Amino acid sequence: MNTIVKKETEKTLRNYANLVVKIGANVQKGQFVVITSKVDCAYFARMVQESAFDAGACDVAINWHDEKSARTKFLRADDEVFDEYPEWMVDRHKQWDEKGAVYISIISNDPDNFNGVDPSRLRRFSKLANSKNKAHSDLTMANKLRWTLCAVPSPEWAKKVFPELTEDEAMERLWDCIIKASRADGDDPVGEWKKHRESFVDRVRYLNEQQFDLIRFTNSLGTDITLGMPKDHVWKGGGSFDKDGIPFNPNIPTEEIFSAPDRMRVDGRVVASLPLAYQGKLVEGIDLTFENGKIVDFKASSNQETLANIIEMDEGSGRLGEVALVPSSSPINKMKTLFYNTLYDENASCHLAIGKAYPNSIKGGADLSSEELLNRGINTSLIHVDFMFGTADMKVVGIRADGSEVVIIEGGEYVF
Amino acid sequence: MNTIVKKETEKTLRNYANLVVKIGANVQKGQFVVITSKVDCAYFARMVQESAFDAGACDVAINWHDEKSARTKFLRADDEVFDEYPEWMVDRHKQWDEKGAVYISIISNDPDNFNGVDPSRLRRFSKLANSKNKAHSDLTMANKLRWTLCAVPSPEWAKKVFPELTEDEAMERLWDCIIKASRADGDDPVGEWKKHRESFVDRVRYLNEQQFDLIRFTNSLGTDITLGMPKDHVWKGGGSFDKDGIPFNPNIPTEEIFSAPDRMRVDGRVVASLPLAYQGKLVEGIDLTFENGKIVDFKASSNQETLANIIEMDEGSGRLGEVALVPSSSPINKMKTLFYNTLYDENASCHLAIGKAYPNSIKGGADLSSEELLNRGINTSLIHVDFMFGTADMKVVGIRADGSEVVIIEGGEYVF
Repeated sequence: MNTIVKKETEKTLRNYANLVVKIGANVQKGQFVVITSKVDCAYFARMVQESAFDAGACDVAINWHDEKSARTKFLRADDEVFDEYPEWMVDRHKQWDEKGAVYISIISNDPDNFNGVDPSRLRRFSKLANSKNKAHSDLTMANKLRWTLCAVPSPEWAKKVFPELTEDEAMERLWDCIIKASRADGDDPVGEWKKHRESFVDRVRYLNEQQFDLIRFTNSLGTDITLGMPKDHVWKGGGSFDKDGIPFNPNIPTEEIFSAPDRMRVDGRVVASLPLAYQGKLVEGIDLTFENGKIVDFKASSNQETLANIIEMDEGSGRLGEVALVPSSSPINKMKTLFYNTLYDENASCHLAIGKAYPNSIKGGADLSSEELLNRGINTSLIHVDFMFGTADMKVVGIRADGSEVVIIEGGEYVF
Repeated sequence: MNTIVKKETEKTLRNYANLVVKIGANVQKGQFVVITSKVDCAYFARMVQESAFDAGACDVAINWHDEKSARTKFLRADDEVFDEYPEWMVDRHKQWDEKGAVYISIISNDPDNFNGVDPSRLRRFSKLANSKNKAHSDLTMANKLRWTLCAVPSPEWAKKVFPELTEDEAMERLWDCIIKASRADGDDPVGEWKKHRESFVDRVRYLNEQQFDLIRFTNSLGTDITLGMPKDHVWKGGGSFDKDGIPFNPNIPTEEIFSAPDRMRVDGRVVASLPLAYQGKLVEGIDLTFENGKIVDFKASSNQETLANIIEMDEGSGRLGEVALVPSSSPINKMKTLFYNTLYDENASCHLAIGKAYPNSIKGGADLSSEELLNRGINTSLIHVDFMFGTADMKVVGIRADGSEVVIIEGGEYVF
């Protein structure tokens, strides 16, 4: 046991690890499991490994990485290194996928890890990595395999979120937030999550029945954007199902109901309400203007170059791939904490994603080719980057094809 | 900085890391470097990475592993898992070798890590891994690439060595031993090592000139063994040279002068003077009898099954692949500490190795095929396992082809 988890009892952390295995990845008997973890989170990765064996895993591989030495590499390696991607790393994912792996990723990033690193190196390498790993990423985003993300504090991340606290206090406080937001603080987190999943059912069904043609978001920050919704679009929330119908939860925690807008029918302006932590850089003050689905103007008050790298990555990265509704009463929003981490911040606020859409955002989408998806308005790209624009005064209106309107969210809360 | 290195200053550890890079691997400008490290030693692996960039490395990859989760896997995974070896792991070594990598391995094993693990699983998996990685291992043992081993304490290892101390005290004490034994405690460790290398030159030259036909070891423990030496055998000590003539040190520390006996001409009995720590098990009281090079009888007072697994691994694992001379006055022996770790214990005591010989143990051996080496008396096997048999009353005699004798070691010390 690492000294940094003194306050949280081992029992609580084991409950959380078990939740990730049972509700997140839903590990089955005989399942091969891959855990991705920072080396500094080894104590928690080992708990997840044990929970996976408890659930009947046949084998568990741990894919270790280290953002500190990655930073040194990005600062100090020869420049051409960032134009090479090892073939064995591609083959590794391929071989894991062929074995029917489920993937559990433990997120613990330092939001400032890549400060000072040449943005061109990050852009070139991440584009290359995304392109080399596209087959695996496609399987993931189409839910052809089960996958889940969960978070564990790191000292750097905790101090960023709670700069007024000592490192130890900040770690404890961030653990408290994570355990509470993940509903892992009670005696039966797995039972709590089953109830939580059910709480989404009625709203998701209503939105899917309505099949709104347009969704319009407005608030006092200056956001006024209208999203066309594709024919047969699907809203989801409270979990997903893999190709065999086995339920899982891609994100722990989750508070969102999401779908994909039509990549060609987005118009207006969106002003971000939270900074975006992307690849170890913080992009603040994001302000985007859309015409016919495309970002025609953008600015940011910090790290605008990082935003430009995202938007200009490829053909699809200048269009949207996700729209997600989160009420202001989300327990994570009520923590009144900026987490500098997408997994947390996206569950505190309505958000959009630049780049690739989840194919299942339209009926039968998982079985369509990229071309068919594009024709149906579903975006594709090497990236998928969420950014937050929800506020307490957000108004969201659904507009039917006949022009009639239904208020979905008002004053930040669901009103249906 | 990890809290477990409070006493040793960061400067000392950085000196040690630099020694490993400069004298161990001898990293050149533009070199690709692979560091193998336990996740728990990340703080030191990162220092080695930085030293490697200081030395001009073009790129540094870190190959992380974790013996704690490996133990869980060996205890809990399905049995057939241990008969599979991932192809991407084979390809990874191949691709690294093709890029001209030098390898730095940070050793920090818990000597008891695999206690209670089914020996059949360990045997099957290690045989498979050794066989799959044979090409890489052959390059390493023939010094066709540069490689080095160094050690870093782990709490489990430190408590095993110093059970009477608290964990923190044991860690500090083991760090002290490692820094001192590695001659990294002064202001100029790299300079100290250059002097240390020179101290071997005269003795190595003498032994190579003599070309003894036989070497006989006797002591009061019951050892009385005679090793035939191959024609054109080569003794080495104080470092090696790679295929391009670049010097490096496979082991930090090193106190041995070693060669290989003729695999068909070993006769007598050898009684180990120290336990053997092998794959997380301790084998004590090793007692072997040889006839015509082959082990015809063996016993151990603990973990005899592990000894049997070693000896019965393959055709060559019942014969010797190395003989090494270490005087009792070795600084590591003078620490009067059993380290439960081959890298340390082998430099405190005369030792032999079961299994594969270093091909360079005969002139031009690196360019010979396995078959040619076998014909010249040089052993081959999937394994190479050192065990210690030196004592303070060891006598070593070199016997020339004409029957004349020269005492090499008496009362544990060199006498030439």
